[in-house]
Amino acid sequence: MLWFKKKAVAPEITTLASAIDYTLLDPRATQKDIANAINIAIKHKYYAVCVNSGNVKIAKDYALVKAVENLNIVSVVGFPLGAQNLQTKLFEAKQALADGADELDVVINIGKAKEGDYDYIKNELSRIVRQSKGKIVKAIIETCYFDREEITSICKACVRAKVDYIKTSTGYGTGGATPEVIDLISNVTAGKCLVKASGGIRSASQAEELVRAGASRIGTSTEI
Amino acid sequence: MLWFKKKAVAPEITTLASAIDYTLLDPRATQKDIANAINIAIKHKYYAVCVNSGNVKIAKDYALVKAVENLNIVSVVGFPLGAQNLQTKLFEAKQALADGADELDVVINIGKAKEGDYDYIKNELSRIVRQSKGKIVKAIIETCYFDREEITSICKACVRAKVDYIKTSTGYGTGGATPEVIDLISNVTAGKCLVKASGGIRSASQAEELVRAGASRIGTSTEI
Repeated sequence: MLWFKKKAVAPEITTLASAIDYTLLDPRATQKDIANAINIAIKHKYYAVCVNSGNVKIAKDYALVKAVENLNIVSVVGFPLGAQNLQTKLFEAKQALADGADELDVVINIGKAKEGDYDYIKNELSRIVRQSKGKIVKAIIETCYFDREEITSICKACVRAKVDYIKTSTGYGTGGATPEVIDLISNVTAGKCLVKASGGIRSASQAEELVRAGASRIGTSTEI
Repeated sequence: MLWFKKKAVAPEITTLASAIDYTLLDPRATQKDIANAINIAIKHKYYAVCVNSGNVKIAKDYALVKAVENLNIVSVVGFPLGAQNLQTKLFEAKQALADGADELDVVINIGKAKEGDYDYIKNELSRIVRQSKGKIVKAIIETCYFDREEITSICKACVRAKVDYIKTSTGYGTGGATPEVIDLISNVTAGKCLVKASGGIRSASQAEELVRAGASRIGTSTEI
């Protein structure tokens, strides 16, 4: 029996750890910090370690040295503002995969969403999805900046772009994941995208609450 | 007579406005917000408007429509974490110039600086400087994360890379420009780089204090 409320076509997560992207996006992170994050992820059997694109190669190499299987390396793209030109985001995504990333967490163009230009959101993500040839792509939509109506429209654009997950937050905005926003995204996407809760998650009980609300992946910088 | 304490080979700034990069880096910024920022810059005769790379084209086009001369468009690169892979920063810099940017404000790789790998800092900046063929390049060194000794080493790497300016802060870190840090950078670089003060500057008197400390460019999101 699954311990969470299965809303979408969630991958099989039988433990909380198997749903966790352990996250190290502090710009001050050194190679030693990245190695340390990987050791923590191995210890807890987390699903992945999420790093800045400049650290993917270091993370992948260290995971190889540790001969760990089943630990995924996630690279953020356009992080955390999402306001780079489209070509740069495409390039960063491609380079992160070339460096060994297994998944990409891409920040949407928040300004374009604010303008109501949801076609831009769809097209940008769609190009990254197509270029990434089957690798898991998550769209970080930075929910704290949007109302329920805007989030609904953004989620629809993400579904059209065929991203695998919608991720709530960068952790650099004014707020993080809440059960309410996870519930909203789950309902709008109706299983066509999975949901990653992130931003301000600092305990197992908080993570479990977000999983019950519909998240099937958890991003956290805290060892939970 | 110049009203500021000329420490370095500062460009001729005879008014505070002529030293100001009016800055709009909020990820929520729409086209309308960018047009508004340009109108403000024109009104006050600011030196430049500083935007995210995805907004350079919009800013440049709007400045052309307004037929304004002497207003420069500055693009940030690798903003605000500086933790992208090197190739992506090079690509973003190139694309921003192709889109019409007159200057580039590039965030250094903060993690590499924390590791003491100042050659990385020098090499990354050096490649961007060479690729940018004479356009002004500023290195954002995010002083809040470093002690005086580290700042000294970073500044020396910036001088070796031949950047035009050292800029103190992104505005996304834990602190901004202070007279003390401007003074330190000015003394270390001894005129080989100019200094841009940024981060938390919200009044003309504060800006003037930083100019007196040695800054010859001011980045601010406040209409001062």
